Amino acid sequence: MKIKLQIYILGKVMTIEGLLMLLPVLCGLIYGELRNSVIYALFAIGYIAAGLLVSLKKPAKMTIYLKDGCIATALSWIVLSVCGCLPFIVTGEIPSFTNAMFETVSGFTTTGASILTNVEGLSHISLLWRSLTHWIGGMGVLVFLLAVVPMSGGSNMNLMKAESPGPSVGKFVPKVRTTAKALYTIYLALTIIEILVLIISGMPVFDSVCSAFGTAGTGGFGIRNDSFASYSSHIQWIVAVFMILFGINFNFYYLIIARQPGKALKLSEVKVYLAIILISTVTITLNILKVTGGSAEAARHAFFQVATVITTTGFATTDFDTWPTLSKLIMVVLMFIGACAGSTGGGIKVSRFQIRAKMIVREIACYINPRAVKKVQIDGKPIDPDLERSVSVFFFVYLLIFTASAGIVALEGHDLVTTFTSVAATINNIGPGLSMVGPTCNYAFLSGLSKWVLIFDMLAGRLELFPLIIFLNPMTYKGSFKGFFSMKQN
Amino acid sequence: MKIKLQIYILGKVMTIEGLLMLLPVLCGLIYGELRNSVIYALFAIGYIAAGLLVSLKKPAKMTIYLKDGCIATALSWIVLSVCGCLPFIVTGEIPSFTNAMFETVSGFTTTGASILTNVEGLSHISLLWRSLTHWIGGMGVLVFLLAVVPMSGGSNMNLMKAESPGPSVGKFVPKVRTTAKALYTIYLALTIIEILVLIISGMPVFDSVCSAFGTAGTGGFGIRNDSFASYSSHIQWIVAVFMILFGINFNFYYLIIARQPGKALKLSEVKVYLAIILISTVTITLNILKVTGGSAEAARHAFFQVATVITTTGFATTDFDTWPTLSKLIMVVLMFIGACAGSTGGGIKVSRFQIRAKMIVREIACYINPRAVKKVQIDGKPIDPDLERSVSVFFFVYLLIFTASAGIVALEGHDLVTTFTSVAATINNIGPGLSMVGPTCNYAFLSGLSKWVLIFDMLAGRLELFPLIIFLNPMTYKGSFKGFFSMKQN
Repeated sequence: MKIKLQIYILGKVMTIEGLLMLLPVLCGLIYGELRNSVIYALFAIGYIAAGLLVSLKKPAKMTIYLKDGCIATALSWIVLSVCGCLPFIVTGEIPSFTNAMFETVSGFTTTGASILTNVEGLSHISLLWRSLTHWIGGMGVLVFLLAVVPMSGGSNMNLMKAESPGPSVGKFVPKVRTTAKALYTIYLALTIIEILVLIISGMPVFDSVCSAFGTAGTGGFGIRNDSFASYSSHIQWIVAVFMILFGINFNFYYLIIARQPGKALKLSEVKVYLAIILISTVTITLNILKVTGGSAEAARHAFFQVATVITTTGFATTDFDTWPTLSKLIMVVLMFIGACAGSTGGGIKVSRFQIRAKMIVREIACYINPRAVKKVQIDGKPIDPDLERSVSVFFFVYLLIFTASAGIVALEGHDLVTTFTSVAATINNIGPGLSMVGPTCNYAFLSGLSKWVLIFDMLAGRLELFPLIIFLNPMTYKGSFKGFFSMKQN
Repeated sequence: MKIKLQIYILGKVMTIEGLLMLLPVLCGLIYGELRNSVIYALFAIGYIAAGLLVSLKKPAKMTIYLKDGCIATALSWIVLSVCGCLPFIVTGEIPSFTNAMFETVSGFTTTGASILTNVEGLSHISLLWRSLTHWIGGMGVLVFLLAVVPMSGGSNMNLMKAESPGPSVGKFVPKVRTTAKALYTIYLALTIIEILVLIISGMPVFDSVCSAFGTAGTGGFGIRNDSFASYSSHIQWIVAVFMILFGINFNFYYLIIARQPGKALKLSEVKVYLAIILISTVTITLNILKVTGGSAEAARHAFFQVATVITTTGFATTDFDTWPTLSKLIMVVLMFIGACAGSTGGGIKVSRFQIRAKMIVREIACYINPRAVKKVQIDGKPIDPDLERSVSVFFFVYLLIFTASAGIVALEGHDLVTTFTSVAATINNIGPGLSMVGPTCNYAFLSGLSKWVLIFDMLAGRLELFPLIIFLNPMTYKGSFKGFFSMKQN
């Protein structure tokens, strides 16, 4: 492990977080929340100063192996969360450390599960910071780092690989920095467009900015106690469409900008993703016709909830816990499928399911004719057997973490649906589950132990399991500190 | 596809079923159930005659490819079930075809899920036939066929591979027939031992025989309305121990008989299986202490229920639906783990989980040091990459069938736990689930559609998915009938 490199990266991450925290400070000043503005400003300046101090000296060796990339990612996200939660504690708005960490990790991982019973009681500055964590976490802080800080060496890909969602990183161009820049440019542009559209539709400016941050990161923190239920129906339609847009593989937008619309339209993951949304929406609309006010309302609720769950955003317009069983089951299934790889959405990702589905077809073909062994292909390109294996392992690790987490949460003795969906909603970075953690409820009632388990699940889900496992595995550090100590002994 | 070979195998299967049906006929005569005895006898004679007639001429080509093995297995099990359910209908004890098929498939697949609200109302002859289907299905009818009918050619392994549970067939000796004979000898011997032990413990002879059949096949049909709750506590301990014995990989017994106890004790799957039972029993005992009469009772219920669920038998001594959430969750997890490969138990099988767990360890090692790629080993032998891939695909197909089935059952609108566990309990061949299909309930209230879906799941679970998929896939028959028809045209 390269300790100096790790410290350098952490310093840069802290500086970025401090700089971004200045945005809510500005907002606080506008709304006249002086006390809170001072607190946030002090933290922001502190983080910037500490970060700069630590990353003053650039380490000589900047080559990052996959192992270092995983450790850097896990560490960055932990530091990001701890630094991010402190203002909530000091302002007294979320006094408990466990609750503040839960809320902040939920923000950065774009989960959107909240321990707040009264969101509307928060100050504007804290509401904006809460929504901004979604935006930062959505595309990833290390991708941002790669976009703005020049890092030598061609191995920065490992940093991006560790943080970016999906089985393969959307590497548009050979240079990592250019890819990172392109990703953030598209991300920022889409966010600004959404803010403008929402303002034009009559939403207050503050609400528009917070909602757009929540949508862009596919996070889900609302700034009203009833999430999106009290906004007008056309605002609900707009937000639903943007959620779906942010769940699309960013390769799609890059190809369109690069004037290759033909290639963009051929991306099979995007097609499958949109097909799933269409089929689910139609099925649920028909299924909930009886319990809603009419077909238009049924279609709106169905479309919004499908969009919010498959993209793992977690906004709510209605309590889908009261829907018929089939609709609830579709919701649970969508929670696991998740959005496209290379988007800001969570879940297992559509392309992982595509790879698995093609593996099944090949396996059946092998049964019928053992000599006809073909390679699995996605978009005409053969899938690397290593990736195939990695996808298989991913599913199983996911299942293990899921089961172990559910076992610990089960100690509280709540019903099975609450236990099961609280883990599903956090590991998939969605937010609301069913029963006691349904769209109209929150996570405040859980014990400290359960909250920490779910905090782990949110991070594991966002970083796609392996960075956290590598970080926590003692084997990773075997011999790492040897040189460090033997130097001292000499 | 070799049509003549398929017909030959089906004929043999019918003959065997007819011969085995003579056992209940004998029982019916002893209990003076004359009308039913005549009905069962007529069916038995009919099946023997029809079977012999069809399999009179041995086909010239006896080589069985994997594809043919899958088709033969699927067809055999369907014919077995249809033939097996007819006596229930004609005697009027289960008049509906759907219900009779559900009960018979549940029997042969060793599920033990019942549509009967009053088991004690059945005649002795039907009760024994019902339990006998467990015994036949437990080790498999084709394995029996291979043991008793001389089939030339070394490719019979494919027939055994398609029917036997687990990722690898317990091929003790190079000759398939010897292996099949050894399996059935061990199976019969263990069953007879259990019958004798139960009779000595004071259980009536009829109850002992039926219970032993249910235990041996890890089936779960009880002959009393309260399953095992009203039997004495020492009978419950005995049955629990035998359930665990039948869930052990039969390789273990073979190695002991072959005087290689050292090798037997080294089988890692058996060790992991017993460790899971121990840990689950202790955890549940501690968890249910408050809701039971004392530590002895808690330990007995915990041990019995863990044994019944991990071996996928499905007997009940208590209603575990009333247990605390953690215990219920452990039950659901055990439902999926299942017994050892090469045993009569169902579920995903311990060894599949072992292979997946070792794949994870290797993947993590790859992250830490990409050059250190090792082969996955079980019991010191490296796992074939094809098997590894096949295990991965198995998990995913399993998940897909599970989700699709739950989607159809959800149409009925029962609660999520009922929907989820009714599929889990049937695809894993267990029997009772939770909530409305809990240990004190039955499957009678479900719609015809749901029952047929669950019938499919039971068969898919017992045959481990692929034979049924290959059988139902139109691609399998591409060109198969071409020769047949062109012959006629000429």
